[in-house]
Amino acid sequence: MRKNNFIGKRLAKMDAPEKINGQAAYINDITVPNMLYGKIKRSEHAHAIIKNIDISQASKLPGVKAILTRETNPAPDFRIGFIQDNPPIKHDKVRQFRDEVAAVAATDPEIAAAACALIKVDYEPLPGVFDPIAAAQEDAPLIHEFDFRGNPIKNNTLPVRWQISDGDLEFYRRKSKYIVSGTYKTGWAHHCCLGTTGIIAEFDYQKNLKVQMPTQIPFLVQNDLNKLLNALGLKNKNTRVISPTIGGAFGNKLDTHCYEYIAVMLAFMAGRAVKIMFDREEEFIGMAPRQPTIIKITQGCDENGRLTFREAEAILDNGAYTSWGATVPSVMYVPMTSLYRVPAVDFKATCVYTNNIFSQAFRGYGNPQATFAIESSMDELAVKAGIDPLEMRLLNANRANETTPMGLKISSCGLKECIETVKEKLDWDKPRPQNRGVGLACLTHVGGGARIYKSDGHGMILKMDDFGKVSIMTGAVEIGQGSETSIAQTVAEIIGIMPDDITVIRHDTAICPWDVGTHASRQMFLSCKAAILCASEAKAKILEFAATFMEDEIRKQNRKNENFADDLLPLLHNAANLTIDQRQIYLKEYPKRTDYAVTIDTILRRGHFQGGKSGEMVITHAFYEPDTEMMHPKTSKGNISETYAFATHGVEVEVDPETGKVDIINFVAAHDIGKAINPMIVEGQIYGGVMQGIGYALMEEMLLDKGKILNPDFLDYKIPTMMDTFPLDVAMIETLDPHGPFGAKGIGEVGIIPVAPAIANAIYDAVGIRLKDLPFTCEKVLAAVKNKRE
Amino acid sequence: MRKNNFIGKRLAKMDAPEKINGQAAYINDITVPNMLYGKIKRSEHAHAIIKNIDISQASKLPGVKAILTRETNPAPDFRIGFIQDNPPIKHDKVRQFRDEVAAVAATDPEIAAAACALIKVDYEPLPGVFDPIAAAQEDAPLIHEFDFRGNPIKNNTLPVRWQISDGDLEFYRRKSKYIVSGTYKTGWAHHCCLGTTGIIAEFDYQKNLKVQMPTQIPFLVQNDLNKLLNALGLKNKNTRVISPTIGGAFGNKLDTHCYEYIAVMLAFMAGRAVKIMFDREEEFIGMAPRQPTIIKITQGCDENGRLTFREAEAILDNGAYTSWGATVPSVMYVPMTSLYRVPAVDFKATCVYTNNIFSQAFRGYGNPQATFAIESSMDELAVKAGIDPLEMRLLNANRANETTPMGLKISSCGLKECIETVKEKLDWDKPRPQNRGVGLACLTHVGGGARIYKSDGHGMILKMDDFGKVSIMTGAVEIGQGSETSIAQTVAEIIGIMPDDITVIRHDTAICPWDVGTHASRQMFLSCKAAILCASEAKAKILEFAATFMEDEIRKQNRKNENFADDLLPLLHNAANLTIDQRQIYLKEYPKRTDYAVTIDTILRRGHFQGGKSGEMVITHAFYEPDTEMMHPKTSKGNISETYAFATHGVEVEVDPETGKVDIINFVAAHDIGKAINPMIVEGQIYGGVMQGIGYALMEEMLLDKGKILNPDFLDYKIPTMMDTFPLDVAMIETLDPHGPFGAKGIGEVGIIPVAPAIANAIYDAVGIRLKDLPFTCEKVLAAVKNKRE
Repeated sequence: MRKNNFIGKRLAKMDAPEKINGQAAYINDITVPNMLYGKIKRSEHAHAIIKNIDISQASKLPGVKAILTRETNPAPDFRIGFIQDNPPIKHDKVRQFRDEVAAVAATDPEIAAAACALIKVDYEPLPGVFDPIAAAQEDAPLIHEFDFRGNPIKNNTLPVRWQISDGDLEFYRRKSKYIVSGTYKTGWAHHCCLGTTGIIAEFDYQKNLKVQMPTQIPFLVQNDLNKLLNALGLKNKNTRVISPTIGGAFGNKLDTHCYEYIAVMLAFMAGRAVKIMFDREEEFIGMAPRQPTIIKITQGCDENGRLTFREAEAILDNGAYTSWGATVPSVMYVPMTSLYRVPAVDFKATCVYTNNIFSQAFRGYGNPQATFAIESSMDELAVKAGIDPLEMRLLNANRANETTPMGLKISSCGLKECIETVKEKLDWDKPRPQNRGVGLACLTHVGGGARIYKSDGHGMILKMDDFGKVSIMTGAVEIGQGSETSIAQTVAEIIGIMPDDITVIRHDTAICPWDVGTHASRQMFLSCKAAILCASEAKAKILEFAATFMEDEIRKQNRKNENFADDLLPLLHNAANLTIDQRQIYLKEYPKRTDYAVTIDTILRRGHFQGGKSGEMVITHAFYEPDTEMMHPKTSKGNISETYAFATHGVEVEVDPETGKVDIINFVAAHDIGKAINPMIVEGQIYGGVMQGIGYALMEEMLLDKGKILNPDFLDYKIPTMMDTFPLDVAMIETLDPHGPFGAKGIGEVGIIPVAPAIANAIYDAVGIRLKDLPFTCEKVLAAVKNKRE
Repeated sequence: MRKNNFIGKRLAKMDAPEKINGQAAYINDITVPNMLYGKIKRSEHAHAIIKNIDISQASKLPGVKAILTRETNPAPDFRIGFIQDNPPIKHDKVRQFRDEVAAVAATDPEIAAAACALIKVDYEPLPGVFDPIAAAQEDAPLIHEFDFRGNPIKNNTLPVRWQISDGDLEFYRRKSKYIVSGTYKTGWAHHCCLGTTGIIAEFDYQKNLKVQMPTQIPFLVQNDLNKLLNALGLKNKNTRVISPTIGGAFGNKLDTHCYEYIAVMLAFMAGRAVKIMFDREEEFIGMAPRQPTIIKITQGCDENGRLTFREAEAILDNGAYTSWGATVPSVMYVPMTSLYRVPAVDFKATCVYTNNIFSQAFRGYGNPQATFAIESSMDELAVKAGIDPLEMRLLNANRANETTPMGLKISSCGLKECIETVKEKLDWDKPRPQNRGVGLACLTHVGGGARIYKSDGHGMILKMDDFGKVSIMTGAVEIGQGSETSIAQTVAEIIGIMPDDITVIRHDTAICPWDVGTHASRQMFLSCKAAILCASEAKAKILEFAATFMEDEIRKQNRKNENFADDLLPLLHNAANLTIDQRQIYLKEYPKRTDYAVTIDTILRRGHFQGGKSGEMVITHAFYEPDTEMMHPKTSKGNISETYAFATHGVEVEVDPETGKVDIINFVAAHDIGKAINPMIVEGQIYGGVMQGIGYALMEEMLLDKGKILNPDFLDYKIPTMMDTFPLDVAMIETLDPHGPFGAKGIGEVGIIPVAPAIANAIYDAVGIRLKDLPFTCEKVLAAVKNKRE
């Protein structure tokens, strides 16, 4: 068999040149003729009744074309959110500081902002509740009086049940020699996409809607906005969603927010295109961060260190409305039930409404929070049992061909190799100087799609032209992760052409076939699976043409070749004898007979130009739907992914006891990635994930004071920069997963997951303090060090 | 069977609102970031040796980024044209006034124009030749010294042979009772597209080329420009052709011209996007008009008026280079051999290089010129034979199921009905006042594609979303003719949805499947044929889903319906029992059982959201290649189209003997259109064609003085306006062609074809003068009237 030409190769990302050269068009760069600018007026209270809205002054301002309030709202009953609790323009009351009270479309963004300032809103402030535990009490102020089905709410607990358990917990608790218990807290972390958010919404003359906006989920946005069209009385109209180049996503573009609906309603009211564009402050205030959690976890092991049970309960601060943040417990299930071999597990989670900012998906989707608790607790258990934390993890590591308590079918598993790699690369057992220590943490995560929607499928169309060039129309969304490069590598590999021959057409619901969106580390896995189908069918078609026309072409090409021997001609008529490599079609068994090679474009043109009915061109399409299960509605169990990723992060830190500063001396990220389709892209994802994890572990936190964000900018919200980098060794363990494309697993999210607990464990190893509250800022570390001394 | 919902209905064109409202983006409206502006410096001589080109002053001008001359030409050996005789930038000499001698790309169009003015070109003038008959003499100045194969040229006759004959001409000549002979002349007519021509060319970072330009042939442009990429050393690179909204075409966008290649070379040299945009004067000078012809024709008939033979010879003024103008004799074959039943035909044509402007395709492509000769001569023959011209045409009219001397297979023919309609509607036999008269002329033309290229095929992809909305990616080019509306009507009709449900994606070679281009009245015919294939397959797929899921959906929908009888449920499981109409799927035999109807989107989502491997979406594609023949390389015979259009135009005129002005009193255009998919669009095409024919007959002519165009503007080049309209009665004869989509024939070009001879014949009837030289300006008519008096 031919060696891989492109799979496993370090090809530059296809979209890199246009990004580096400043030619990529982000939503900031895009305008449409005759466009208006929309601005949103937001609440100044965390919880208040809206008594009166006066737009009389605003509406007099020249250039104002539409003002949207509860009085002018063309879709007053329309709500968004996971349980449809969020009216894009608030009517009865505001429930958080960011709440959208009014919006203006004007000929100029300054005029729109001035008009917003002129809108007078009278509020009657209500007592707020900002702590999820307090909010869950029956006497707490109610944020929503009725749930999404119209039932009265008794406390602020969301009417969504999150629970999973397996095995006889009490039996295994009794069998445990050692048991540890602890409570771990995480806060709000913001995605900090370098490109801020925006939308251009416009209606055509048939009242179909077109929106341009960066999104991870164009087809779900289409669905969401079609619902608004229905609410606007535009029955049977449709939405076309086009996403420009996306300047970062990480989950904050996985849902629609109020601003998109507001832009559409303003465009509907004004009869013109409307653009809403966030600046950095509005990006912090108007988008939704990672969900804060309080997780109480108890784990046990037997005398040898084998895990016996895991019991955990999470309380999530849901904020005032629901987005995907309200569903992150579903992903917490994965590590809670399936990280290490645990015979009995029990996990519960409760999301509670507060008057804080509501939350969204963020890389890892609950897994970082859960893994922080699990892996911190694992270290405490190891200490209690007197076992080396690394050896304890080796002992309990997952194995291939096992089914976990959640029902996840592990088709391949390199966790043991990951742990051993960390051990070796960090020189784990070596003595360290004072205030230095090592820690590690592991992870498991979906790596082959995640069936959280009715379809986890991916649609693709392949079209080949007369020159052997391929257009791929894909549902895949490129958020910087490199999916289009992976697709091009796959198609080039399968057909036998070059990645440069491929144009990837994406981000347009009218042109590209359906895909559920870029999330859950699924995009490369599923789009490459579809690409294999499309490309294989295309190759078969080309070889079918070749079997018909190659003899003729070979004769033509060799007309003047005196050395040409025509003995192999009969072999040409069987497609099974032929193959393609580097744009050449030739006899598989005679690769050196260049006199028997024809370029692919020659054969494509022969197939096309037959001058009669049989003329054909190569077009194929595929819809790849992974062979997975939805979580069972009662047990929450099910094999939601075709494969699972594993990894171990090991870190050596030095803690300065005088300042509380934690320095990363060395970091090893060993990942079971199945197969690296492009090692450079895999490294990039892991580098990025680890650095985002460093931010989550050491610096990033949105500070809220009674619901108001105190640090909505990069001056006060700190993220790691190039100055914060350190030696980072990415080790790729190739387990060649039987379900993965070329054996690959999805690894888009995993880099962030175990960073915080690995650092927590290393800090403990360095200075003996156990930090349970993210992030580990200098202040917190210093306080803990002092506290320990005292 | 269900009645047609949309076929035969007068639906507004889908692109009308955006055009009417000024939102359609033409090439004039489009810019890309960092773009340069290109200008072309043209020859000031009709024929001259280029002695020297001095760019020293021009290159000093700030803002000039690239200057293209024969010295800087990055592809010096590259030539374009039907026989590759045209270097985009001229090197040895100029051969016409429009010749491209140099070009500049600059940051501003004024700077580019100023730089062009600063380029100094020294010429050595050569004697020019401007009359094709003189040019064909062996001692005429040679315009090209070598033909495209490098052979020396002896006279200016093109090395392309145009000849067709059938039947025993001499036998039938002897059998003729009456014979007439005459020579007919036509001149240069310009397309006068309201949108002038332009291009934006840019290279991406992989050195692939993207061009935005209005064109009728995106896929042939791709082919053409890929050849330039090869010449530029960019092997294996590709061109993406995107056409913005097209502001008229009529054939002038059927070929590439020098300016596209110049823009690409400037972009290549400057490393930036380059836009070239013509103003009206450059549009007249830089584009290519209809080919002028001199046709000598002889026809005979027997004593009863039955045609016996037709013999004709044409000389075409080719101008200095070849474009499609050099191939118009191939379309002259059709009327010359096949208009009326003629047992013996012989036609020859010679194209001759002159130092005049070269010519291009123009609506009808030689047929108007040929029909002017044939139908003028027919009237002369009728006069000579003493037969009414209309009766003579009835006698000789083509019939269905006959094969013509060229080998055209007439599958349906309404010519007799067309003639009779004119007779009736014009009240043919009624006595007229002095100076009034009636005339008629008929036509035949390709109506079901025209196999002039290796493939006459049309590719289409259909993609359906979860809401029952359809995207059609089509190779069809919309030049105003309404093909996208016809496609939408077809798809809606076949599937059972609404035309508004359909988005037509077009004009992008990277997204749309191949099509040879909008020409030869083929686009509606072929794209609707492909649409029928795509939509039928989609419908079958939907009904297959329905057969699986409908029982479940019907049960769900009727859960609370007490009157629901479940007796029909078993019928639902056979797709053959089901059909779709107006977005509803129901039992074919029980259309009134609304409790058994399900909306199409419901079933599409069921098909998609099956939660497992079998989830599918509806995507289909088709490549329709008509069952036709290339003209035989020796005999020129062959059935080049799947069907043929016929028509008769009858006109009543009044000639003012004092001024020579010809007034149209009444006009009847009776057309065999097979079937009107959209009668409003058919009427629009015929209205437009007739008015363009009026211009050709009465006013339009490009005046050249030794190769220089004297009237390159709308002040001096007159076209008909609303002030020139008259009662125009379009009669649509529906012959339901067995090959046509729903029976339709292509009719994009035909409206223009017989206008001039019908008017010529009416003028003869009115005042007894026979005009043989187009256009019939007042001056010419007046001169002829005076001449007759004297």
